[in-house]
Amino acid sequence: MHNVRFQALRRELQREKAEALLVTHLPDVRWLCGFTGSNAALAVTATKAVLFTDGRYTTQAKQETHGARVVIAKKSALKEACAWLEASAKRAGYDPEHTTIAALAMMRSAVSGKVRRSFFVALERPLVAELRTVKDAGELRLMERAAALGDQVFDAVLPHIESGMEETEIAAALEFFARSLGAEGMSFETIVASGKRSALPHGRATATRVGRNGFITLDFGVILNGYCSDMTRTVCVGKLSAQERAAYEAVLEAQEAGVAAVKPGATCAEVDEAARAVLRKAGLARYFTHSTGHGVGLEIHEAPRLAAGQTLELKPGMVVTVEPGVYLAGKFGIRIEDMVAVTQRGNKVLTKTPKALIEL
Amino acid sequence: MHNVRFQALRRELQREKAEALLVTHLPDVRWLCGFTGSNAALAVTATKAVLFTDGRYTTQAKQETHGARVVIAKKSALKEACAWLEASAKRAGYDPEHTTIAALAMMRSAVSGKVRRSFFVALERPLVAELRTVKDAGELRLMERAAALGDQVFDAVLPHIESGMEETEIAAALEFFARSLGAEGMSFETIVASGKRSALPHGRATATRVGRNGFITLDFGVILNGYCSDMTRTVCVGKLSAQERAAYEAVLEAQEAGVAAVKPGATCAEVDEAARAVLRKAGLARYFTHSTGHGVGLEIHEAPRLAAGQTLELKPGMVVTVEPGVYLAGKFGIRIEDMVAVTQRGNKVLTKTPKALIEL
Repeated sequence: MHNVRFQALRRELQREKAEALLVTHLPDVRWLCGFTGSNAALAVTATKAVLFTDGRYTTQAKQETHGARVVIAKKSALKEACAWLEASAKRAGYDPEHTTIAALAMMRSAVSGKVRRSFFVALERPLVAELRTVKDAGELRLMERAAALGDQVFDAVLPHIESGMEETEIAAALEFFARSLGAEGMSFETIVASGKRSALPHGRATATRVGRNGFITLDFGVILNGYCSDMTRTVCVGKLSAQERAAYEAVLEAQEAGVAAVKPGATCAEVDEAARAVLRKAGLARYFTHSTGHGVGLEIHEAPRLAAGQTLELKPGMVVTVEPGVYLAGKFGIRIEDMVAVTQRGNKVLTKTPKALIEL
Repeated sequence: MHNVRFQALRRELQREKAEALLVTHLPDVRWLCGFTGSNAALAVTATKAVLFTDGRYTTQAKQETHGARVVIAKKSALKEACAWLEASAKRAGYDPEHTTIAALAMMRSAVSGKVRRSFFVALERPLVAELRTVKDAGELRLMERAAALGDQVFDAVLPHIESGMEETEIAAALEFFARSLGAEGMSFETIVASGKRSALPHGRATATRVGRNGFITLDFGVILNGYCSDMTRTVCVGKLSAQERAAYEAVLEAQEAGVAAVKPGATCAEVDEAARAVLRKAGLARYFTHSTGHGVGLEIHEAPRLAAGQTLELKPGMVVTVEPGVYLAGKFGIRIEDMVAVTQRGNKVLTKTPKALIEL
């Protein structure tokens, strides 16, 4: 598995005429060689790969790392990786999206003065991130499992939600079920937004109590074997107004149109537009204030982005979220989100929880 | 509160002869103006401050932001902040530690061609990070509360730990108590490392079952009002060897020596050395493979670092962890960690849980 990934990366390096690569973004490191520690610099050439980390990870790095030799750095893993690269190649690429100005200065300080300015070259394309967009069969299985665990957690928490509860109590129960059912953690801060707070697209759980009537948006993800799930359901308690019901139906229709548009060859912008068009027709487009979705995998937000102007074409193996929503400030909000895998012929929705309005 | 922080920042800007500053690191943004959203660029001049974010945060940004005007960017919050800065100042500083090469390219693309190369200047010192190292009275209260919540969580989980449990079950219970007792979330991935796995300094909870004899290291933190707690206790089940008991006592003595060294005017290196010297005397220094501690606040890892070579002097209001440990690969590990606030005359240990060995 890791050998295949290194091979794919080396093909890309050749295509870019890059002799070597420094990988420092931790999910990229993990994807390539399996190491999950919090400090790592992976140096890759056409024939060799060396993972540099520190003394906290001596045992763990040996256990986890495949396809790369492990070196425990005495001082700075990053600097030792750079020194090794200088001894092994004439130039090395790096990822400008995940390299800070300060890190580049440190990288340069680790190579000799003669080549300081020229040795490190920013990659034109985020090579590892691009490779990671297309999940292999093993990854797809892990992502199905993560999504299924998300479904289980949702089922488990639903009977516990009622008027008068604090949002944080709901989040506590949800996260307890997640852990109890095997999650390594949550993939982002759990969103529980009730009543007027449902109009906050990113309404983290607060001490607000669930009112007698209205929506509750639950947006959460679990991590399983390193892979993130992501799902949103908006449920309701008590009575809804006609406007609220109509808006729910519109968001649901938009979400289903977005999912239907996910297939090989469709552009990311087309999926976004498919969902947005439904809300436009319903007169709700101006309340849909974010993009339709994002890639998901080892990170909760990965490439691609499903948004206007994104011309990238979907490929089999990509996994994206489809999550349109409407947010009427001071009134209510609704969002519905599934994880969707692109298949050879169309798509497979990984989130299995029904989407018809759940009235608690 | 936020006005005082902006004032302090403006004094630093003047000292650095910087006319304006672009703040993009989210904890810095939050500390300065209160906004907690996930997308923000805060532009600050000697007289004005404007927070740029996106449409997801229209309501939230207005509610949370103090000391800065809010602008909802149509496209890129970052680029609009840069355009505003160009109209307001001749140059603007930025933080090279938290600005990627790609972000700097985007920032430059947002200002006119004439000044593209010269407009943005990397700060010599991380001004906001430095200000944030010294907590004000309100922050210290919040951090005491976060640490107290950590203590409560530890007390709550302790009776539930026994041989045969999976580490993840312990983590699940711990995190459930955290949420139930009011935590907004965990400040990092909970570490539960039992038996031989306790020799992994960063042993995330796995499906490993707690054995009949040996140590269990619990390292966890809660988030309360945005502030992180961080504590570690190593407890044991069954019987320990004489070597294990002696090592525990040595780590405890080292931890207490580290805490005793925390006072205004002491350097970070002195605190590290105080703890390390005890382990050296016990013949265990080579098993202490990390630094002694770190600052903590809105982020789980902040400045300062308590490590060899760190000449920074501690000041009243700083909050650091003191967490020496020993890790004997394949055998066992021990770490003990408190949060400690520097006071006018010495220090105050915020973590109140006792440190004598707990035998379950």
